[in-house]
Amino acid sequence: MENKHIQEIINKEFRCLDKGFIRLIEIMGDDSSIVQAARVSYGKGTKSIREDRSLIRYLMRNSHTSPFEMVELKFHIRLPIFVARQWIRHRTANVNEYSGRYSEMTSDFYLPEKNQLRTQSTINKQGRSNDLIDESLTDEVIKSMETSQKNSYNEYIKYINQGIAREIARINLPLSSYTEWYWKIDLHNLFRFLKLRLDVHAQYEIRVYAETIANILKQILPISFEAFEDYMLNSITFSSSELYLLKEVFNNVDLKSISDDENILSKTELNEFIQKVTFINENILNKNKGI
Amino acid sequence: MENKHIQEIINKEFRCLDKGFIRLIEIMGDDSSIVQAARVSYGKGTKSIREDRSLIRYLMRNSHTSPFEMVELKFHIRLPIFVARQWIRHRTANVNEYSGRYSEMTSDFYLPEKNQLRTQSTINKQGRSNDLIDESLTDEVIKSMETSQKNSYNEYIKYINQGIAREIARINLPLSSYTEWYWKIDLHNLFRFLKLRLDVHAQYEIRVYAETIANILKQILPISFEAFEDYMLNSITFSSSELYLLKEVFNNVDLKSISDDENILSKTELNEFIQKVTFINENILNKNKGI
Amino acid sequence: MENKHIQEIINKEFRCLDKGFIRLIEIMGDDSSIVQAARVSYGKGTKSIREDRSLIRYLMRNSHTSPFEMVELKFHIRLPIFVARQWIRHRTANVNEYSGRYSEMTSDFYLPEKNQLRTQSTINKQGRSNDLIDESLTDEVIKSMETSQKNSYNEYIKYINQGIAREIARINLPLSSYTEWYWKIDLHNLFRFLKLRLDVHAQYEIRVYAETIANILKQILPISFEAFEDYMLNSITFSSSELYLLKEVFNNVDLKSISDDENILSKTELNEFIQKVTFINENILNKNKGI
Amino acid sequence: MENKHIQEIINKEFRCLDKGFIRLIEIMGDDSSIVQAARVSYGKGTKSIREDRSLIRYLMRNSHTSPFEMVELKFHIRLPIFVARQWIRHRTANVNEYSGRYSEMTSDFYLPEKNQLRTQSTINKQGRSNDLIDESLTDEVIKSMETSQKNSYNEYIKYINQGIAREIARINLPLSSYTEWYWKIDLHNLFRFLKLRLDVHAQYEIRVYAETIANILKQILPISFEAFEDYMLNSITFSSSELYLLKEVFNNVDLKSISDDENILSKTELNEFIQKVTFINENILNKNKGI
Ligand SMILES: Cc1cc2nc3c(=O)[nH]c(=O)nc-3n(C[C@H](O)[C@H](O)[C@H](O)COP(=O)(O)OP(=O)(O)OC[C@H]3O[C@@H](n4cnc5c(N)ncnc54)[C@H](O)[C@@H]3O)c2cc1C
Ligand SMILES: Cc1cc2nc3c(=O)[nH]c(=O)nc-3n(C[C@H](O)[C@H](O)[C@H](O)COP(=O)(O)OP(=O)(O)OC[C@H]3O[C@@H](n4cnc5c(N)ncnc54)[C@H](O)[C@@H]3O)c2cc1C
Ligand SMILES: Cc1cc2nc3c(=O)[nH]c(=O)nc-3n(C[C@H](O)[C@H](O)[C@H](O)COP(=O)(O)OP(=O)(O)OC[C@H]3O[C@@H](n4cnc5c(N)ncnc54)[C@H](O)[C@@H]3O)c2cc1C
Ligand SMILES: Cc1cc2nc3c(=O)[nH]c(=O)nc-3n(C[C@H](O)[C@H](O)[C@H](O)COP(=O)(O)OP(=O)(O)OC[C@H]3O[C@@H](n4cnc5c(N)ncnc54)[C@H](O)[C@@H]3O)c2cc1C
Repeated sequence: MENKHIQEIINKEFRCLDKGFIRLIEIMGDDSSIVQAARVSYGKGTKSIREDRSLIRYLMRNSHTSPFEMVELKFHIRLPIFVARQWIRHRTANVNEYSGRYSEMTSDFYLPEKNQLRTQSTINKQGRSNDLIDESLTDEVIKSMETSQKNSYNEYIKYINQGIAREIARINLPLSSYTEWYWKIDLHNLFRFLKLRLDVHAQYEIRVYAETIANILKQILPISFEAFEDYMLNSITFSSSELYLLKEVFNNVDLKSISDDENILSKTELNEFIQKVTFINENILNKNKGI
Repeated sequence: MENKHIQEIINKEFRCLDKGFIRLIEIMGDDSSIVQAARVSYGKGTKSIREDRSLIRYLMRNSHTSPFEMVELKFHIRLPIFVARQWIRHRTANVNEYSGRYSEMTSDFYLPEKNQLRTQSTINKQGRSNDLIDESLTDEVIKSMETSQKNSYNEYIKYINQGIAREIARINLPLSSYTEWYWKIDLHNLFRFLKLRLDVHAQYEIRVYAETIANILKQILPISFEAFEDYMLNSITFSSSELYLLKEVFNNVDLKSISDDENILSKTELNEFIQKVTFINENILNKNKGI
Repeated sequence: MENKHIQEIINKEFRCLDKGFIRLIEIMGDDSSIVQAARVSYGKGTKSIREDRSLIRYLMRNSHTSPFEMVELKFHIRLPIFVARQWIRHRTANVNEYSGRYSEMTSDFYLPEKNQLRTQSTINKQGRSNDLIDESLTDEVIKSMETSQKNSYNEYIKYINQGIAREIARINLPLSSYTEWYWKIDLHNLFRFLKLRLDVHAQYEIRVYAETIANILKQILPISFEAFEDYMLNSITFSSSELYLLKEVFNNVDLKSISDDENILSKTELNEFIQKVTFINENILNKNKGI
Repeated sequence: MENKHIQEIINKEFRCLDKGFIRLIEIMGDDSSIVQAARVSYGKGTKSIREDRSLIRYLMRNSHTSPFEMVELKFHIRLPIFVARQWIRHRTANVNEYSGRYSEMTSDFYLPEKNQLRTQSTINKQGRSNDLIDESLTDEVIKSMETSQKNSYNEYIKYINQGIAREIARINLPLSSYTEWYWKIDLHNLFRFLKLRLDVHAQYEIRVYAETIANILKQILPISFEAFEDYMLNSITFSSSELYLLKEVFNNVDLKSISDDENILSKTELNEFIQKVTFINENILNKNKGI
């Protein structure tokens, strides 16, 4: 059954951003390989699917990460260089990238959609906010970006035609240039990648790729992915300091009256704590409404 | 100030188990190195100690692990081989071990204390329980273990004297034989090691070493270690499924009445959930009692 | 064609030593995957088999190791613990080992063959020589080793029956006990493992496993393996100091007259140099004889 | 003694390219740490400096790489992004990079010197040749590159002023933009980095950095660095196929008459072989001339 899903997905190009894509080239193993490897430790053979699911969830819950390393995935990815620069920081992967020294660069550049022209976020010091910049400017900005990309490329081609070696000619190409690579990684480290790059703090453009990978995994490794979502992605951790305040919440849902008399938490942390508790409350309310 | 602590600790032999030890040989960096490296990202220089502490805690809380890799520690460790076998599984370290092929093995073996002769745990399938075995047996068992170790060593020496190469002569030495090594690791991966090996699921004998390292870190990297304790070691994570039940707890501390009608959690997980909530409740009571 | 070979080999148990084995469980990719990944860098598609072979050899010759990381292999291995201790030092692999904490240990131990009861080597300070020990002793030694293994196991079982937790009961089992694991690694790092563990300096018992893996690779990755043999395994490297002496050899094969007047090489290195040159001379003679 | 050298070098800014630098921030260990770690394996203490040198050379010669991992170095580096992209591919390091999401990018860009405006090499498919492009063009090209860099930066600042988030505003900055990072790595992996990046196949701009690091190492780790130069950097390896031809050379230095009748080597490899032999011959001649 899983095999069918895999066959449909293998080699399929999932578009990302304006000119990028992700293709799953090959996969070693599936949900059952994790169980198989874990059972070596227990000296026991395979069991029912129900028990397999329990075991996978148990492993994930208890950070028994080594069995998840027994599944390996290889992707072909096309992505802007500034995204590649963030991506490559994940060292537990194997990579072969297109070389601008061997081959001529293509004329493809990432051009953001207008609704991504957002202002600097004031909360998240790294990222963009939810607010668009002055709408009268967006057309102009996109136009200016596009022109700048075309000019850079024309210069690049001119340098090449003037006989300049490719490795020098390309140094003024923009970070928005598309590159591509083969990328191979095990499932444990891929989950770690997703945890970091699906996060709201990750740059939108890499998140688009992370979400595409998440969607692929959901289909071909349904049990592991569900466990990942439940215990890693959508879980909430309370620090030991927060645990002292949590009892008050247990007795008194009115967050305004939470007292941090003893200054256990810094102001920032107190805010984060309140956000978590609020999220939990709303989350459950949603569920009661039938979700 | 930190320097003073480091000078007192460097090269000091901290005894572990009956014949083992840990010595910190060298350390690169301290708490401030983490801040220094993180600030490269922000393009800013050093700040007040107060702000440094905030930053370290912020990095730890948000899994910004790379700055913690900027501190490196080198230890000299003497440990039984069965502990070494668990330890070496942490691959993100550099190791040089005593070689039983080059050199003769010593006659030191780990002999458990009587109070470690415990029965198999029924809860923790890997480990020992809190119950001692039949007390009338303990003397005999210890005696028998010791004799067996001596016999093995005598045979080893006999083989050596018969001219057998060391690498073969040693194959029947017991897993309780002591070995030693130099072990070098960065702080991020050391915290990961500690998280796994301070845990109640880790075997007692490796936990003794992990606790010794934890005590060293507490003194020479006080801010990072405190952050590690707060956000990693003593934190509690609720899975997304558990979050649905948590609201009930927010309104009703009586755990018995928690209903998992919708079967969100398996029986095991429901138990784990109740344990967490109970722990939080008791934890706070303790605090009120002055802790 | 390669596929056929793979089908015959997958899951087959290759016996190693007296009670061990290696089984290839799964492989991701084959010789062509290396080419495919390398061609991403060149921005070119597939070519003829002849050109593929050239490319693989070019990559190997020039230490372009990353494309070899694109092939991944997963093995199931049964091996004595003292071999496992050497093996696990290769950190660039994924491992799941049988747990003596979860499960009872088996009664299988490695017992060397008589012809492995060799004396300590005087040349290779780590290993055994080619000389057997006093032949009158071999029967006795084997017998004594076997008895010792049985006694250890009986004691282990006694401890278990006395209710002692498995993780303690096992501490006096010998290093010759068999364990098993799943082991997954990429081809580049597997070649590195083989380079080190096929070497004459590696302990005989791990070499047996390395040779078994080499035989598997020869069949399923024939082009890469041939390149590995040619450029890594059977190549000879001359240090820059040796290169100064090599010219004399170019003119004068009589090794005895090689002069190291300037003391470029230490005595040990001079010997190594002469060995290399002798080997090359003999090697070619062999070839002339038709090999 | 070594300490004095280290003190002079620590924190000193070594300029690289037009606006870059390398600073050694911290070092853990020195030549003697390698010996110290290796001696754990042999179960022996320290020896004379002479013996230390021999041991280090022995370790290097025999790929006993683990003791070299016991020395750790931390650098502060300023480098163009296209160099950083090659550099970061070395995964066995710890990195903290300046963030264009947190902070504004500087207006510094790498502008090649005129004598680096070379044509595409026809031998080395990746790199530049030794030939300058048409000299009448160089001024124009440099001018055009500089203008293009200024324009990109002005646009970047305009976007920032229009309120666009930094992480988007920067996407059209060129690959020649300077970035900086802290980079920490052990000596074994640093030697591997140098082996690859001092090589003539590496791009000139990263080679400049590699040479700067090499010069630093030569001063603070003189024995290890000498061993690295002798056995890794300046050594020559002959493949097993080449060894068959080497005997002919042993008897007949006239390279023109070397016959590869049996087609052991491809045409490319035969050329490489002849180059090696020629190099060795010339090398020795040089030595006779007093080098
Ligand atoms: C001249 C030159 C040209 C190049 N051209 C290209 C090109 O066209 N395209 C391209 O993509 N790259 C190219 N590269 C980069 C090259 O493929 C390597 O990625 C880079 O040199 C780093 O080398 P490394 O893997 O040995 O280093 P490190 O990443 O530091 O690794 C050192 C060793 O550690 C082990 N290791 C570390 N991490 C892992 C891991 N995650 N999985 C398995 N083993 C690991 C391996 O044994 C590895 O050999 C080029 C490099 C050079 C020098
Ligand atoms: C004949 C022989 C004798 C030996 N004797 C001894 C001995 O007496 N004592 C002893 O302790 N060991 C001994 N060893 C083990 C040896 O030191 C290595 O640990 C082992 O061979 C693994 O090699 P590796 O590091 O290349 O492999 P891997 O661990 O697979 O590493 C491959 C490469 O990846 C990179 N890498 C992987 N992990 C890390 C990391 N955490 N940090 C930095 N880089 C990393 C490095 O570039 C490394 O070269 C011996 C080995 C052999 C073959
Ligand atoms: C209580 C307990 C019980 C255990 N029981 C068993 C058992 O029954 N059987 C068993 O086999 N093991 C068992 N283990 C060992 C466990 O599976 C891990 O091997 C060990 O804890 C090391 O953890 P690690 O992988 O996080 O550490 P490290 O090896 O230090 O790795 C840290 C991180 O670095 C990355 N990494 C490092 N090297 C690689 C690599 N080569 N490839 C990919 N990613 C890499 C991964 O992201 C990894 O999470 C047990 C451990 C504990 C604590
Ligand atoms: C939102 C966000 C913002 C970021 N901002 C910045 C920034 O401003 N500046 C910046 O420099 N980076 C930044 N990063 C990158 C970040 O610091 C990490 O480099 C990146 O997320 C990769 O994570 P990793 O180390 O867990 O992954 P991997 O490299 O895949 O490592 C996984 C695990 O393997 C082990 N490991 C692998 N290689 C090694 C090694 N060589 N040595 C020791 N252990 C190793 C470690 O245990 C590690 O946790 C940011 C990342 C995110 C998600």
